[in-house]
Amino acid sequence: MEDLIDTQSESDQRGIKIDWVGICSYSHPIQIHDKSTEKQNTIAEFSLAVDLSHERRGTHMSRFIEVLNERPINLSVNDLDLIPQNLLRRLNAKQSKVSIKFPYFLEKSSPQSGAVGLMDYEVNFKIVANEHETDSKIIVKIPVTTLCPCSKVISERGAHNQRGTVTYSVRTNETLWIEDIIFLVESCASSQLYSLLKRSDEKHVTEEAYDNPVFVEDLVRNIAIKSNDLQSILWYRVEAENVESIHNHNAYAVIEKG
Amino acid sequence: MEDLIDTQSESDQRGIKIDWVGICSYSHPIQIHDKSTEKQNTIAEFSLAVDLSHERRGTHMSRFIEVLNERPINLSVNDLDLIPQNLLRRLNAKQSKVSIKFPYFLEKSSPQSGAVGLMDYEVNFKIVANEHETDSKIIVKIPVTTLCPCSKVISERGAHNQRGTVTYSVRTNETLWIEDIIFLVESCASSQLYSLLKRSDEKHVTEEAYDNPVFVEDLVRNIAIKSNDLQSILWYRVEAENVESIHNHNAYAVIEKG
Amino acid sequence: MEDLIDTQSESDQRGIKIDWVGICSYSHPIQIHDKSTEKQNTIAEFSLAVDLSHERRGTHMSRFIEVLNERPINLSVNDLDLIPQNLLRRLNAKQSKVSIKFPYFLEKSSPQSGAVGLMDYEVNFKIVANEHETDSKIIVKIPVTTLCPCSKVISERGAHNQRGTVTYSVRTNETLWIEDIIFLVESCASSQLYSLLKRSDEKHVTEEAYDNPVFVEDLVRNIAIKSNDLQSILWYRVEAENVESIHNHNAYAVIEKG
Amino acid sequence: MEDLIDTQSESDQRGIKIDWVGICSYSHPIQIHDKSTEKQNTIAEFSLAVDLSHERRGTHMSRFIEVLNERPINLSVNDLDLIPQNLLRRLNAKQSKVSIKFPYFLEKSSPQSGAVGLMDYEVNFKIVANEHETDSKIIVKIPVTTLCPCSKVISERGAHNQRGTVTYSVRTNETLWIEDIIFLVESCASSQLYSLLKRSDEKHVTEEAYDNPVFVEDLVRNIAIKSNDLQSILWYRVEAENVESIHNHNAYAVIEKG
Repeated sequence: MEDLIDTQSESDQRGIKIDWVGICSYSHPIQIHDKSTEKQNTIAEFSLAVDLSHERRGTHMSRFIEVLNERPINLSVNDLDLIPQNLLRRLNAKQSKVSIKFPYFLEKSSPQSGAVGLMDYEVNFKIVANEHETDSKIIVKIPVTTLCPCSKVISERGAHNQRGTVTYSVRTNETLWIEDIIFLVESCASSQLYSLLKRSDEKHVTEEAYDNPVFVEDLVRNIAIKSNDLQSILWYRVEAENVESIHNHNAYAVIEKG
Repeated sequence: MEDLIDTQSESDQRGIKIDWVGICSYSHPIQIHDKSTEKQNTIAEFSLAVDLSHERRGTHMSRFIEVLNERPINLSVNDLDLIPQNLLRRLNAKQSKVSIKFPYFLEKSSPQSGAVGLMDYEVNFKIVANEHETDSKIIVKIPVTTLCPCSKVISERGAHNQRGTVTYSVRTNETLWIEDIIFLVESCASSQLYSLLKRSDEKHVTEEAYDNPVFVEDLVRNIAIKSNDLQSILWYRVEAENVESIHNHNAYAVIEKG
Repeated sequence: MEDLIDTQSESDQRGIKIDWVGICSYSHPIQIHDKSTEKQNTIAEFSLAVDLSHERRGTHMSRFIEVLNERPINLSVNDLDLIPQNLLRRLNAKQSKVSIKFPYFLEKSSPQSGAVGLMDYEVNFKIVANEHETDSKIIVKIPVTTLCPCSKVISERGAHNQRGTVTYSVRTNETLWIEDIIFLVESCASSQLYSLLKRSDEKHVTEEAYDNPVFVEDLVRNIAIKSNDLQSILWYRVEAENVESIHNHNAYAVIEKG
Repeated sequence: MEDLIDTQSESDQRGIKIDWVGICSYSHPIQIHDKSTEKQNTIAEFSLAVDLSHERRGTHMSRFIEVLNERPINLSVNDLDLIPQNLLRRLNAKQSKVSIKFPYFLEKSSPQSGAVGLMDYEVNFKIVANEHETDSKIIVKIPVTTLCPCSKVISERGAHNQRGTVTYSVRTNETLWIEDIIFLVESCASSQLYSLLKRSDEKHVTEEAYDNPVFVEDLVRNIAIKSNDLQSILWYRVEAENVESIHNHNAYAVIEKG
């Protein structure tokens, strides 16, 4: 079979470099190490790409899969350059790009009864590398409660509130654990969410949300302030979107630093 | 070209009837007539299928598209058997099945200022027909506000609330307009939703929701009672799902009649 | 806190039983045992529900989470009644319903080079239980290649083909492993899929697909025949949907036994 | 009601400007004019946002809806600045951002029999404006057939092919109609797609795809070349993604100009 024509390796006459070529929507099990976890088993969706010189017709798609198969995939926020560097080598590329998106679980105790439950967050590592440097972004989606300050102040009783989702993207120059990102964001909302709440806990989070109303604008500003205070953060983008309980559309706000 | 082999029309020796064969994920513009509208232009996603005798190898897929192309598609809840009957004829079938799903818009005035806005609802007609009879179901997704009775009663202030979605499916023996279904369901929630609310309206819906707390269980029961009161309703299924503002999972409840 | 009013436990005067009430869209890590695997770590999306008597106003939502938290969740197709039986007990219910949906990975060797890669499949256990019996369905989504027999026979060269997905649902009276379901379905398509194919493998699957053309109708019939031959299968439903490479809509077919 | 406190208009002490604040996931009917159409009725999903000065606590969300309600929404690629300019005025903003995403239909005759059918494409207008200038991008998703050159050359018969989607984004300095974008992209694939194909047409598209094999890399390069030839194109980004018929993951490639 070794004589099968290698169409991908043909030279190309069109003179056009390809910015990114690779595979996406590929699922693979991984292990994550974070601040407080031994090792957490989860399932990631991968996108992998490299650049392609104007001289070559195609990349070798099977090598992307081989890079992932080389060994079990153990990741932490401290150690994200292994896959992109392997791609550079195996694909003879100048640039590589990797996206790894997975559900991440955090054990939480409820605020009054102390009942323990697991909360899930979507985490996405986005890494771009060349031979000399690696640029890593961590993106975490964090669901929160937001209670409307306007609704509270104009109404004689109650206030509309809802689930919102904060998408927090960050580049740092020293370790920032996933769970620290989660805590930073959750502390800026009307209340954090829990998977398990007993009645005393439900009273607590209801009153806490009522006592801490935030517009979607307040939410992103509060997160921006806390982010600005952390010297290790080089860049961030915070986007919040509320599943408004009084509308059939959502409200959103964005602040990007840098 | 008329001599091209017709593989689909070959006889089949496996002896197995196919329950449904056809096309899905097909988009096409339609017009809807409802109680208060002239004609509403919208875009529908179609699924179309027929049964296939154990004697024939394949159906003729292009005829499904031809049936939809015959003329502009004008639909009302009173008149849902044209497409399924045409399918029976064009495909020489004994059974046909049609699903037509589309966004439907209703003009609403806000409760205090009277500001006018459009609310969108997902409507789905599901029709099964044979030569003698047509069975039609109308399914409408209606977003609402739900405010938690437990949270209200145990908390000194506030109450968690959220957007929920009611999926209401119904078979009737006389006309039940889409907007009547929407009104029935919205009247059973803590509050209905609006696209456009001024400040006085927001006060109104906040207080109304606080004054009318419903569990997901209350919501489906309230809808069931109103449905039971309508003689024209032969069957219904009501499912409600709340995007809980204090959890990262949803709560749901279902009642089916008959 | 023990004096907080228990609104859910109030009696209800509306006289309407609720068929199902519970939680959905809840993610939780699980372990799966299958024929050839030690233990596979994956992430499941759960729906959990129970019936609710006409006499009681609400269920206790937090107990659904507690049932999942009691111990690590280890599942196999032989052992699906633990969670539904626990729900019956903890919620004082007569009926319980559980859906567990997760990605499942299978190690496959490519057909010529023997290169090893992981293929992912979506598996869904659906279980309904009462005190006396448990009804379990296993549903597996299996992506395959389908090559059109009509296109092949009428064309002088080539034949259109595409990725399709078979959704196979089954009830059995003895063990049918997930991987046996996958093998049954994949053997009925034009070709199975692989995550990793070298050039010699690509030649193999291309020619194999060309030599085994199947309409969506052929695919479901072939699966039906193989299923009918297995005495242990009490009921099945096979649905195939092709992402047609020549259309912007899909073709589908369904056979249900019993 | 005119005395209700206007919380949004409060001054803000945090000193942080918000890049974008507004609404998203809002559906509204629109009319589109394109090269060959009178007026096409469709349904758009809107995102609308403005910047917010560091001095003000919140924006006025209801005004976004009011801007859309002012009059029926008639759009063409020549005339995209009305909504963003209205937002600047009504929200007293310096920047506004509008995304309008909708299905767009094109009538196509099949290549042999001339049978007429409707093909749907997703179109997205993205517009950013300030008082002085408007920057508009048009993004069109165009499904195509791609047939693998490697599979064709190494196999004795057949070649794997599949549906792919090209996402073409473009900025121009003169009118480029949606349908011209579609034709440009479709002419670079192995074959274009049709909703309605008779047997003679299916033979035609099968052989045409076999005669014009393209890697995902070829597809984006071909489109890049044609785009480079058009003087009116200031910037483009072309991304192609193939639903590989032999894998359970997708292949993709990207070229961006400028």
